[in-house]
Amino acid sequence: MKVVLIGAGNVATRLSLRMQQVGMEVVQVYSHTASSAELLSGRLNCAWTTELAELTSEADLYLISVKDAVLAEVIGQLKPNRALWVHTAGSMPMDLFEGQMERYGVLYPLQTFSKERAVRMEGIPFFVEAHTPEDVAVLCQVAEALSGNVQLLSSEKRRTLHLAAVFACNFTNHMYALAGKLLAEEGIPADSLLPLIDETAAKIHQLSPAEAQTGPAIRYDKNVINKQLAMLTDPDMKSVYQLLSQSIHKEATQNE
Amino acid sequence: MKVVLIGAGNVATRLSLRMQQVGMEVVQVYSHTASSAELLSGRLNCAWTTELAELTSEADLYLISVKDAVLAEVIGQLKPNRALWVHTAGSMPMDLFEGQMERYGVLYPLQTFSKERAVRMEGIPFFVEAHTPEDVAVLCQVAEALSGNVQLLSSEKRRTLHLAAVFACNFTNHMYALAGKLLAEEGIPADSLLPLIDETAAKIHQLSPAEAQTGPAIRYDKNVINKQLAMLTDPDMKSVYQLLSQSIHKEATQNE
Repeated sequence: MKVVLIGAGNVATRLSLRMQQVGMEVVQVYSHTASSAELLSGRLNCAWTTELAELTSEADLYLISVKDAVLAEVIGQLKPNRALWVHTAGSMPMDLFEGQMERYGVLYPLQTFSKERAVRMEGIPFFVEAHTPEDVAVLCQVAEALSGNVQLLSSEKRRTLHLAAVFACNFTNHMYALAGKLLAEEGIPADSLLPLIDETAAKIHQLSPAEAQTGPAIRYDKNVINKQLAMLTDPDMKSVYQLLSQSIHKEATQNE
Repeated sequence: MKVVLIGAGNVATRLSLRMQQVGMEVVQVYSHTASSAELLSGRLNCAWTTELAELTSEADLYLISVKDAVLAEVIGQLKPNRALWVHTAGSMPMDLFEGQMERYGVLYPLQTFSKERAVRMEGIPFFVEAHTPEDVAVLCQVAEALSGNVQLLSSEKRRTLHLAAVFACNFTNHMYALAGKLLAEEGIPADSLLPLIDETAAKIHQLSPAEAQTGPAIRYDKNVINKQLAMLTDPDMKSVYQLLSQSIHKEATQNE
């Protein structure tokens, strides 16, 4: 299967490297930014371009991984052909392709990808959707090869899944950032937190987050909460602390 | 070494079970709540009481793991003796013992503990502090036996460490809870998020949280941010989303 990549960011990088690993042939990389296109094509040993008009028509699958903000615009500039076109955006509907392509779908890997970090692809949940049952089958085969963990999901539900992922991943990582910032101010090495962070993640394989919750907010220990609020000098961190402590307490009260 | 436990909650449970595992002898458990005292003493096969006045004086180490809100009150009721007295509270100073005991200190494990979940104790960072160098040495030995990862830390710095842990663990777990709630509303199994949650934690062993950050807020993708805000019907979750997205964007701008 010959693949063209449209985009050379985090998702495009990790997916295309995995595709080559499982025997798919990436023939061309497009990126708006020449340096990104060149870098990724170098890792893949394939052609690259910064012009959508120069995309080869000789591929079976076109994978679009660009910022959501420009996805519709990019699709609008594509030359239609009989190949299968997919995007990888959690929040964007499949029907962006409607009227533009005959065969289209979505291939959404639920994972956080960075160019600089290899991640084990086996087991990552891939959520697929396609315009026809035949192309659902094609995308299931692709995802099966990439990760072995495939599920069908509508655009409507995928958008909720992506929102949940923002909480579970992006906001979580920001909690790590804020914690690290506090430690840096006191000269305590940030890696002291790693065993705690690992166990916090590991714990919810066994307990629900409600059962796993510990700390001053779940005990509604006003004494500690007020002392900790007073320690925070950054007004934004104070707001985060206050809002999340209230939210934890509220969830706990509702679950009782 | 003979140990008396004052408290039978999450921390007391996991620490005392580990103490027995490494050959320390837990001789008595106190809890305000009879059922908790009885349950833990059953797991440890030792005596229990609900009266502080009935604590045995025949121990070398008294470990106090009670809610921060009642810690000072509990210490005020203790009969002084020549043994070593420690508490395990991240946010509370060591000098709560001053004037009450001759020998005292703090043994603070930086981890999230639940009664129902065994956690690997090797490698958990223990932060210790004691009134005399001799008792620093005793507590270092104890922590060395329990985890092998021991550091000295003042009450002042420990309080910052505990605040950082609230962000890295308690608030992180709450992000998992909110994500799970969103999925439950759509009938999507919460365990779909586990590979993402695991990778989010694993990632910061290699990259800093600033380097690891992905998602709409770091790209400041207003299109996605506004659509996701509109999807959130719970006003509290909307506030959390808004505040954290702004905070991510602000940190990123400062780091540039």
